[in-house]
Amino acid sequence: MPEYKIYYFNVKALAEPLRFLLSYKNIPFEDIRIEKSDWPAIKPTMPMMQMPVLEVDGKRAHQSLAMARYLAKQVGLVGSNDWEDLEIDTVVDTINDFRLKIAVVSYEADEEVQKKKRVTLDNETIPFYLEKLDSIVAANNGHFALGKLTWADLYFTAILDYLNYMAKTDLIANHENLKKVVATVLALDGIKQWVEKRPQTDL
Amino acid sequence: MPEYKIYYFNVKALAEPLRFLLSYKNIPFEDIRIEKSDWPAIKPTMPMMQMPVLEVDGKRAHQSLAMARYLAKQVGLVGSNDWEDLEIDTVVDTINDFRLKIAVVSYEADEEVQKKKRVTLDNETIPFYLEKLDSIVAANNGHFALGKLTWADLYFTAILDYLNYMAKTDLIANHENLKKVVATVLALDGIKQWVEKRPQTDL
Repeated sequence: MPEYKIYYFNVKALAEPLRFLLSYKNIPFEDIRIEKSDWPAIKPTMPMMQMPVLEVDGKRAHQSLAMARYLAKQVGLVGSNDWEDLEIDTVVDTINDFRLKIAVVSYEADEEVQKKKRVTLDNETIPFYLEKLDSIVAANNGHFALGKLTWADLYFTAILDYLNYMAKTDLIANHENLKKVVATVLALDGIKQWVEKRPQTDL
Repeated sequence: MPEYKIYYFNVKALAEPLRFLLSYKNIPFEDIRIEKSDWPAIKPTMPMMQMPVLEVDGKRAHQSLAMARYLAKQVGLVGSNDWEDLEIDTVVDTINDFRLKIAVVSYEADEEVQKKKRVTLDNETIPFYLEKLDSIVAANNGHFALGKLTWADLYFTAILDYLNYMAKTDLIANHENLKKVVATVLALDGIKQWVEKRPQTDL
């Protein structure tokens, strides 16, 4: 079995889908959490000066969605043909669009600008995406794609705490289908064990 | 051969990588360009109310990167194993990050805010990404990944006009390796024919 290492900060956020995917099959990995104070020294050594970074037998990759797709192939949570993989990729990219739309407001440095943008985010963007995502799950037998468990379900569940943190709300509180996805993923043996033992962090 | 349709506005932008990928193998497709005036009526019929949309034998997909990856598999511009595909996906996502960082400034509605953000974009973000991307090509035999032609090369070349339009500059003017990628892609038979016959648009 390859030797896996995940480099990230001491948060769930963008690395948690990778940790979920490996945990799903109880694949061991080194969970390297860089302290904020050490980051300036480490930053130039990382590709694109960013994390998360995935290391597989000493070879490094970055880009969280690309790495998640790679790990999904290793643990058998992808489709069985090109069109099925397109269906999974499409919903994952839609979830990622949702993340970016929340992030661009949450990370806005100018407080006045952020306040203004948060009104549109709360009243338009978030309800639009939640309704769409919920209806996708309703049409897919309680999953995000193909009517069965795929890496899209793990991806959404793993980043949800980060989305909630940035959006300052419990996003799925009133969306029964999205709640069902999360409950299904968190009940999986490997995921359950990971969530019990992982470091407790807000985001 | 499947029947392909691409729905988008009368611009290159996010649909052009799809048009390039099909043209690369001279695969015919219906190039449906929606007039801005017709969009409000058509918008609710599109998944996520967005375009581009790809239709394959009557089945519709969306999300530009997911669709490009699907077409890349059909025309043989992907890797030969999971790690190679991860390498391609990683650089495509990096190019897409670059696009998003330019877009978030270009689409900023508040003129004062845009002006302020454009300073950081021009002085920090754009030089950082161009240098990184240029060095990736330098290390990959004139390509973005695997030392050979992949869909990453077509993706970058196809969206470059859109990036230039949003950034208000000729991004690759001083980057010889990036120029080489573009020259290589535009010299491919199928692409050359497509570029000669496509509608002329600014972005």
